[in-house]
Amino acid sequence: MTAQRVLEAVSAERLHGLLDTLATFGPGERGGMNRQALSDEDFQARAWLIGKAQQLGCQVWSDGCANLFIRREGREDLPAVMTGSHIDTQPTGGRLDGCYGVMAGLECLYALEDAGIRTRRPIEVVVWTNEEGSRFSPGAMGSSAYVEPARLAAYRNNIDANGISVGQALDAHSRRFADLPLRAKIDAHAFVELHIEQGPVLEQAGIALGVVTGIQGVRWYQVRCKGVSAHAGTTPMSMRRDALLLAIETVSRIDGLADRLAGDDKRLTFGRWSVLPNAINTIANEATFSIDFRHADPAVLAAFDEQLAACLPLDAELQSLFSHAPTAFDPAVISVLEQACDATGRARLPIRSGAFHDAMYLAGHCPTGMLFVPSRDGISHNPLEFTEPAQLETGTRALAWGLVSLAEQP
Amino acid sequence: MTAQRVLEAVSAERLHGLLDTLATFGPGERGGMNRQALSDEDFQARAWLIGKAQQLGCQVWSDGCANLFIRREGREDLPAVMTGSHIDTQPTGGRLDGCYGVMAGLECLYALEDAGIRTRRPIEVVVWTNEEGSRFSPGAMGSSAYVEPARLAAYRNNIDANGISVGQALDAHSRRFADLPLRAKIDAHAFVELHIEQGPVLEQAGIALGVVTGIQGVRWYQVRCKGVSAHAGTTPMSMRRDALLLAIETVSRIDGLADRLAGDDKRLTFGRWSVLPNAINTIANEATFSIDFRHADPAVLAAFDEQLAACLPLDAELQSLFSHAPTAFDPAVISVLEQACDATGRARLPIRSGAFHDAMYLAGHCPTGMLFVPSRDGISHNPLEFTEPAQLETGTRALAWGLVSLAEQP
Repeated sequence: MTAQRVLEAVSAERLHGLLDTLATFGPGERGGMNRQALSDEDFQARAWLIGKAQQLGCQVWSDGCANLFIRREGREDLPAVMTGSHIDTQPTGGRLDGCYGVMAGLECLYALEDAGIRTRRPIEVVVWTNEEGSRFSPGAMGSSAYVEPARLAAYRNNIDANGISVGQALDAHSRRFADLPLRAKIDAHAFVELHIEQGPVLEQAGIALGVVTGIQGVRWYQVRCKGVSAHAGTTPMSMRRDALLLAIETVSRIDGLADRLAGDDKRLTFGRWSVLPNAINTIANEATFSIDFRHADPAVLAAFDEQLAACLPLDAELQSLFSHAPTAFDPAVISVLEQACDATGRARLPIRSGAFHDAMYLAGHCPTGMLFVPSRDGISHNPLEFTEPAQLETGTRALAWGLVSLAEQP
Repeated sequence: MTAQRVLEAVSAERLHGLLDTLATFGPGERGGMNRQALSDEDFQARAWLIGKAQQLGCQVWSDGCANLFIRREGREDLPAVMTGSHIDTQPTGGRLDGCYGVMAGLECLYALEDAGIRTRRPIEVVVWTNEEGSRFSPGAMGSSAYVEPARLAAYRNNIDANGISVGQALDAHSRRFADLPLRAKIDAHAFVELHIEQGPVLEQAGIALGVVTGIQGVRWYQVRCKGVSAHAGTTPMSMRRDALLLAIETVSRIDGLADRLAGDDKRLTFGRWSVLPNAINTIANEATFSIDFRHADPAVLAAFDEQLAACLPLDAELQSLFSHAPTAFDPAVISVLEQACDATGRARLPIRSGAFHDAMYLAGHCPTGMLFVPSRDGISHNPLEFTEPAQLETGTRALAWGLVSLAEQP
């Protein structure tokens, strides 16, 4: 069968060579990566990738958000099967987050060449711009602007830490890659994203492949607790209004709420803190912290939204920063991906994604699914991010089988 | 009696005029002050003050740390009675912290002139440089360098947020006030510092004057809790090592230790926090916080030092940032200041200082004492810092009585 032949044509050596070469653009600390979206390192990586695509005889397009589309034509002029991910990284990121999905997609194109197979539908490997959101807010910028192009105008005003706007960075991309034709959104038959799990579930289960059923919904809030700054030495405890202690109590109440609502499924993080005036000898008059709460059940998320205010002190300020509903992937795509895993001869696990991915937005455009491979110790966004080479190969083989199978669909 | 005549010669109008004029140098936000040590605003205030002193017929000296000594000669060449405080402020400071003690001292010199009295001993009003420590570390720089001149060499290397060193700032002071003669440390008969309480005790008690028995000792520590950064969406709670949650647990244990050791006398503050990577969607791998623990009993401070490590998680890093033993003021000076308060006809309260003051270092040089006036709502280091004008006047009268009484001692 065609899909199986392409699966077998996947070259482990070539795959690892592609990953190694990509990692030369924007090396970071301790063997990790620092390739910020639309940075010079990103541009160098894109130039290398475009060269590879052209050697493969593929046409390459860009669009208004600097997404790259590498298209291998099919036998018929039907909507394409898309795959891909992103190549920007966290400032102290690893070599695999996003990059793996793009390089595995490219390897599938090589394997198709080697196997001498032209699929019925075109296959496109996509590089989505600025998925991480670490240079420019928001994350998943490229995929969300692709699916809803009206978002782009607002995105262009967002600035990075140096005051450079998305618009300026996109214009620099246009100048750098002036030869690339631009293309608007097209219909797609399906989108499949292969990614590292970035969590510990597959590793703990000892299973090499995850077929992702959907993505958890998320609520991001900011809570600002207010107190009165006063001298640490002169103010008796009974007369203090210490914003930091108030924030700690509030964290405890929010934790209790999440326990009640989510039980063992709780995913709750207080990751960002700012204390004012942040002096050793002054009682804090302001303590601000972020809440990241995730769940797969829209009803749990709604209950969290409703009951959160009751956890807060009277004069705390609550600000909603971001909210995204859970995503359920397409059952037909999931079914193909399950067969793709079976074709590798390895066990698979249905798994829910705790992280956002470009596939979250693509699911609003076409039938979408995702494959996961294990992450050692569940570590990601970190130079220690690692997946066994054999697991990376298995994931790529499953992707090849799935893409070809979808691309042969009428 | 001489002291009573000077007490009665204190002019409320002149005192408030001095305070109002000083507040024109370095006005801050919301009616407060921002006059950083050795800044241009500080220099302007010093130039004004030197002019006032010279009009009064006083000689003015400086020294290697830019302290200013305004000397009114006595009838005999005996060690002087010194008074004074500082005129640098917190970045969002008030008009009284430090400034009140210097302006009240100056008003006492005016009152001596008006009363036509020359005391047996000289009286000096001192401006100690950089008491706040907000521009340059450490605080009480001028008074500590005066008492232990060997400290100055190390202080000169400390830099402010703009990279300007203490040495450079002191050299700028020397150039600006090139006419001022320099003087080394001299013997002193006594030092008295008048200050706002910066706490709520006098106000709560409804008493206008506090005779300070001593200054609490202090321990400053920094605790760094370590975790593992991981993705907020993908990492089950049971597999997390969240440095922020670890820090919150540790705060709770340290709080329990302070409760056991200090009971109602507890003064414990966690004022400075730093969380890494400080991102909404990443579990913290490092949470660092400061501890400010104060007590009057050296045994309690020692027990805190001994038992603190047992409150910390295994791999936390504990760093001692600062430590100062409690200060007990001189019984003979305290006795004179009690009589000085009685001479005003107002009630007095023995009180322990929760804040550091220049008097803490002077106590290592000569018999030392302090007087407090109430702070509204206990607020200081804040534009809202306020003391009733009548209370400021009462404090100045008590200071005048005390200085003259000490200066008449044989």
